[in-house]
Amino acid sequence: METLSSEEYFKVQKRALLRELNYVWQKSRFYQEKFGREGIELGDIKEIDDLEKLPFTEKHEIRESLNVAPPLGKHASVDIGNVIRVYSTSGTTGNPTYIGLTFHDRDVWRETAMRAMWACGMRPRHIVPLPIGTFFIAASYGEAIENLGSTLIPVGVGATDRLIGAVKNLGANFILSTTSFPLYLITYCQKKGIDPKTLGVRGFMVGGEPGGGIPHIRQKIEDAYGANVQECMGNGDMLGLMWAECEYKNGMHFVGQGACHPEIIDPTTGDVLEVKEGLKGELVYTSIDRECQPLIRFRTRDHVVVTQTTCECGRTGYCIKCIGRTDDMLIVSGVNVYPSAIRDVVGTLVPKVTGEILIQLVEPPPSVQPPMKIKVEHGQDPGDLRSLKNEIGKLLREKLIFNSDVELVPPGTLPKYEYKAKLVDKDYET
Amino acid sequence: METLSSEEYFKVQKRALLRELNYVWQKSRFYQEKFGREGIELGDIKEIDDLEKLPFTEKHEIRESLNVAPPLGKHASVDIGNVIRVYSTSGTTGNPTYIGLTFHDRDVWRETAMRAMWACGMRPRHIVPLPIGTFFIAASYGEAIENLGSTLIPVGVGATDRLIGAVKNLGANFILSTTSFPLYLITYCQKKGIDPKTLGVRGFMVGGEPGGGIPHIRQKIEDAYGANVQECMGNGDMLGLMWAECEYKNGMHFVGQGACHPEIIDPTTGDVLEVKEGLKGELVYTSIDRECQPLIRFRTRDHVVVTQTTCECGRTGYCIKCIGRTDDMLIVSGVNVYPSAIRDVVGTLVPKVTGEILIQLVEPPPSVQPPMKIKVEHGQDPGDLRSLKNEIGKLLREKLIFNSDVELVPPGTLPKYEYKAKLVDKDYET
Repeated sequence: METLSSEEYFKVQKRALLRELNYVWQKSRFYQEKFGREGIELGDIKEIDDLEKLPFTEKHEIRESLNVAPPLGKHASVDIGNVIRVYSTSGTTGNPTYIGLTFHDRDVWRETAMRAMWACGMRPRHIVPLPIGTFFIAASYGEAIENLGSTLIPVGVGATDRLIGAVKNLGANFILSTTSFPLYLITYCQKKGIDPKTLGVRGFMVGGEPGGGIPHIRQKIEDAYGANVQECMGNGDMLGLMWAECEYKNGMHFVGQGACHPEIIDPTTGDVLEVKEGLKGELVYTSIDRECQPLIRFRTRDHVVVTQTTCECGRTGYCIKCIGRTDDMLIVSGVNVYPSAIRDVVGTLVPKVTGEILIQLVEPPPSVQPPMKIKVEHGQDPGDLRSLKNEIGKLLREKLIFNSDVELVPPGTLPKYEYKAKLVDKDYET
Repeated sequence: METLSSEEYFKVQKRALLRELNYVWQKSRFYQEKFGREGIELGDIKEIDDLEKLPFTEKHEIRESLNVAPPLGKHASVDIGNVIRVYSTSGTTGNPTYIGLTFHDRDVWRETAMRAMWACGMRPRHIVPLPIGTFFIAASYGEAIENLGSTLIPVGVGATDRLIGAVKNLGANFILSTTSFPLYLITYCQKKGIDPKTLGVRGFMVGGEPGGGIPHIRQKIEDAYGANVQECMGNGDMLGLMWAECEYKNGMHFVGQGACHPEIIDPTTGDVLEVKEGLKGELVYTSIDRECQPLIRFRTRDHVVVTQTTCECGRTGYCIKCIGRTDDMLIVSGVNVYPSAIRDVVGTLVPKVTGEILIQLVEPPPSVQPPMKIKVEHGQDPGDLRSLKNEIGKLLREKLIFNSDVELVPPGTLPKYEYKAKLVDKDYET
């Protein structure tokens, strides 16, 4: 599926889309009402391009749908009796979002996760600890690892000793985790007097947050372990994994063919943008093979840039990098700024800085009154601190067009995160 | 498989045993050496009864085997490349024990777990939160729940809020957990001002520690939730689940037909005892359908009593209750006493006591100088404390033949455990 020609791809996606829409029109009360209100009929959609006629589905609609029709929402197309597993999203505000999988959905999630793992270099000989809790979509990762023929070692969050034991005793050599985890593990090893290189880990497959695609972060991990780092991405509401970097490491290929149809839109106008190198926009997903909770044109709030549309590896899905999320986005004097982009820019100054940053918000986001207060860890030999501070300020002004107030702090001062990194500190009262 | 006649059962077990022994003789370095030392040949074993000719496998041998031949031990019969999942035993002393499963092993574990779940009353309509971490054998429980057609909600240890959310929002109505968990949840609900009865939980399937079979504990849970409690048991080294109580609740039926052959031995002489009602002894397991780490005559240290050999439910496997483990056993003036038995006896005095106890050891076990110091929670209206203390002492002397020094403490004083109960407090220096 990953090497389909453009023609074959659109044929596959179209056939799956039309079948799914037919299903949704029959089974999903949410979409029956939503499309009914807009006067849209099933017959209006004949081609992939006709998707533009359908309205977006927003995250808050999903929440409302879950509230009015518990347990799985008005957008669920099956009864909970047909569901074999229910995930809950990790602690966000308000009630958790429940995501149900039927037997078929589980197989689809597993299939695209296996494609992503293969792209990221996972092979049957690998022994793969999973330092993520399986109450969330990571359970589907575990199954995919097993079905690929690799050896799964379930570890869970907060059990770094167990993971180190698995590396030492079982020869674990490929780790699937958040991007923060290998960074955290470097610090952990330093404290224990272990050189990360001696662990024998050959590869990291990282995701769950921007960072794996930021050059200085990837470099730091690769250098510390003498291991390869490739990035992957999925979406809890849609599909566990459907983007993955191949060995050329030039952004994440789409590998969710037949299961999901992605569009890239202008986040302001909602217009669908034509995929080409350098394109920036928001990802929108449409389920094309989902039984439990199919979503049509689901706005992810993930902002991405298209890095390439062809690749030597033979995969035909275009490649993206994730820049950040709408929810994380800050607006400084009318300019959109992502915390991960600030980390990216500051990181180009490694080793004068460690690459760790912490943004101090004094008022609720997204609007920030300049100068934006940012703590930056300087490196071991930073030279003159005053000129380093000026250099960082100048670089941020040049690259991201905002004024900053940088406070330099010694290396190791800023918190490290085992699960996902927090780049923003909220200093205001709520 | 659960309703095989005695003749069919022995035919199934014999065929599987002979096939497994043939496999072990060819593939397991550990058993090649062990049997070779004893001068035993494969041809010596022709019948189930011939199993007695084979030596026991002790837990310490497994540990040594893992040490000399990491990662899976000399007793492993396949290379780690053929293993799809590796569990590690939870924090015992020393290195963790690693348990590997091949695809086939996973299917076998799942199959007997499904039989156990069905026996304990789990049905496809049930929505089942699993408050156990899936890094251990509980992962196989999760798969069995799904394959039974029930709805799995992975929760994990220490996420009681998530579990309560699943009960309220998803209508979760059947909980698989340690025996301690529903007891802990009663206290948790009281603190939150929730009447456990309003949760709507219809059944608990409990195991992992003695307790589910102790009448006053079962009664306490059943009364608090208005729910049914049935007990199950497996063994981390052998098979995730292979004993389960049916609706008649008269001990746990053997449901591991074709996967495991259990024997009950005299723990002192090692003689195999004939299974009949009232028999007490130690469980010994032999793998008869295991690829990765087959174990022959594995001494479990689990001490059991046979509660019945026929049952109205139609299952033909005999029934047991677990009395305790050798590792937990205390010896008072030459008499074997299990902490769980003390809890059982004291519990007969509910509501004058709450049923919670804590044994205070002043010297390392197993030998205890009488009187044994025991803290016992008295009930809300205990009457005269002095005469209650005497009553408990007299009862323990009568039933368990040892002298105690009972300290009565107010209800709610002794610690509650979310995962597994600790009945013994070590007051000595190590």
